[in-house]
Amino acid sequence: MELRENERIDDLQCKGYCIIQNTKRFCFGMDAVLLSGFAAVRPAGTVLDLGTGTGIIPILMEAKTEGRHFTGLEIQEEMAEMARRSVALNGLAEKITIVTGDIREASKQFGGASFDVVTCNPPYIETNHGLKNPNDAMAIARHEVLCRLEDVIRAAAFVLKPGGHFYMVHRPRRLVEIICLMEQYRIQPKRIRMVHPYMGEEANMVLLEGTRNGGRQMIVEKPLIVYREPGMYTDEVMEIYYGSEWKRRGKTGG
Amino acid sequence: MELRENERIDDLQCKGYCIIQNTKRFCFGMDAVLLSGFAAVRPAGTVLDLGTGTGIIPILMEAKTEGRHFTGLEIQEEMAEMARRSVALNGLAEKITIVTGDIREASKQFGGASFDVVTCNPPYIETNHGLKNPNDAMAIARHEVLCRLEDVIRAAAFVLKPGGHFYMVHRPRRLVEIICLMEQYRIQPKRIRMVHPYMGEEANMVLLEGTRNGGRQMIVEKPLIVYREPGMYTDEVMEIYYGSEWKRRGKTGG
Repeated sequence: MELRENERIDDLQCKGYCIIQNTKRFCFGMDAVLLSGFAAVRPAGTVLDLGTGTGIIPILMEAKTEGRHFTGLEIQEEMAEMARRSVALNGLAEKITIVTGDIREASKQFGGASFDVVTCNPPYIETNHGLKNPNDAMAIARHEVLCRLEDVIRAAAFVLKPGGHFYMVHRPRRLVEIICLMEQYRIQPKRIRMVHPYMGEEANMVLLEGTRNGGRQMIVEKPLIVYREPGMYTDEVMEIYYGSEWKRRGKTGG
Repeated sequence: MELRENERIDDLQCKGYCIIQNTKRFCFGMDAVLLSGFAAVRPAGTVLDLGTGTGIIPILMEAKTEGRHFTGLEIQEEMAEMARRSVALNGLAEKITIVTGDIREASKQFGGASFDVVTCNPPYIETNHGLKNPNDAMAIARHEVLCRLEDVIRAAAFVLKPGGHFYMVHRPRRLVEIICLMEQYRIQPKRIRMVHPYMGEEANMVLLEGTRNGGRQMIVEKPLIVYREPGMYTDEVMEIYYGSEWKRRGKTGG
């Protein structure tokens, strides 16, 4: 496997899978890992990941679920091409397809009501919040330059089958907007989980599940706490990262 | 103090205050106590409690805050009369007024933009969920017989000053509806706190703060855990119930 400039291969510590990342562009974070642990797909179900970046979410979900096929949509061709090399590196070309394209034009690329599950780890920051280089790959991943929250939810509503599930990770700060948009596009929020860095701190991430044309009943799950002390993940986060394997290796976090 | 049939006096363990409750009608629960700990009012601010029942929320907030005046609105005259006796019993007649009236007609009883703070511990259950005696006092307190969620939020939006604060406790199950209605009536949700019976369980209550004509930024506070083990409240819940006094008495929960 030949790597390009600023690329590296990281071991995902999960079924022996690896991922190629470019340190000058965007490396996946804990949010993607937590989302892949929160999302579910029934055996033989199909999944579309909107704004897949490195392809981390389809790769982790392929490892963790019995989903039949995973598609990652990515607007930046260089990112998409790198994600395709990660897919090939793991021998997953038959199970994961990386498509280059724009979330805002998902309805041209995919059929309506064509997926069982949609996942998304979107940019969190509104465009006008202190942006210097709007064409920068990092900016596109973090800021709503090429894709606003409403674009994500509209696309998900279009491609999801009735009763299909939408999973997203985002900032609690924007929870009102998220819930109102999901309601508006009839992806009813059904389950949320707050992620707190420490037990005694505000949530800094929120995991959401919505159902296309679902009812209005909501469950707020037990909080997900990331660290039990500085540098030490909680048991639950260790399990999301490393499955049950980490227990056999001894409980060392960080 | 003469008590009527089925009435009893409970010590609130807070500034020596007591409250009269009728065991055949409705006794306040932990939700009212947690709401009185979550709500805030600036010194000299005015507070309206919608559906005040026994008057527990104005009485606890009078004890815990520097608010100037508290009004409790209660539709059931017998409850309102009992709440007035509790106010008198505590010598608070100059600081707390209990008004008999209907939340749905709050705009006839109070001026627009006339309160700094509105609190509410409303009925949680939609009217059509297994109701046997819709005229029963207990049913009126628990089910949306005389007052729906939208009535509460409409009334709050009417009486709140711009920038005034709304505090409510409710069920997480209905969070989507709550947030959408608050948005619709321009009481923007600003701060929420999930209440979990135990650390590892779903939330069974949610505390919300909204600001009349506020922005859309939301904070999700650290979770509030009620029990550390069966029958033993966490330190934080003990402090909400008993202030800092309980520490001097020794840490005995339950």
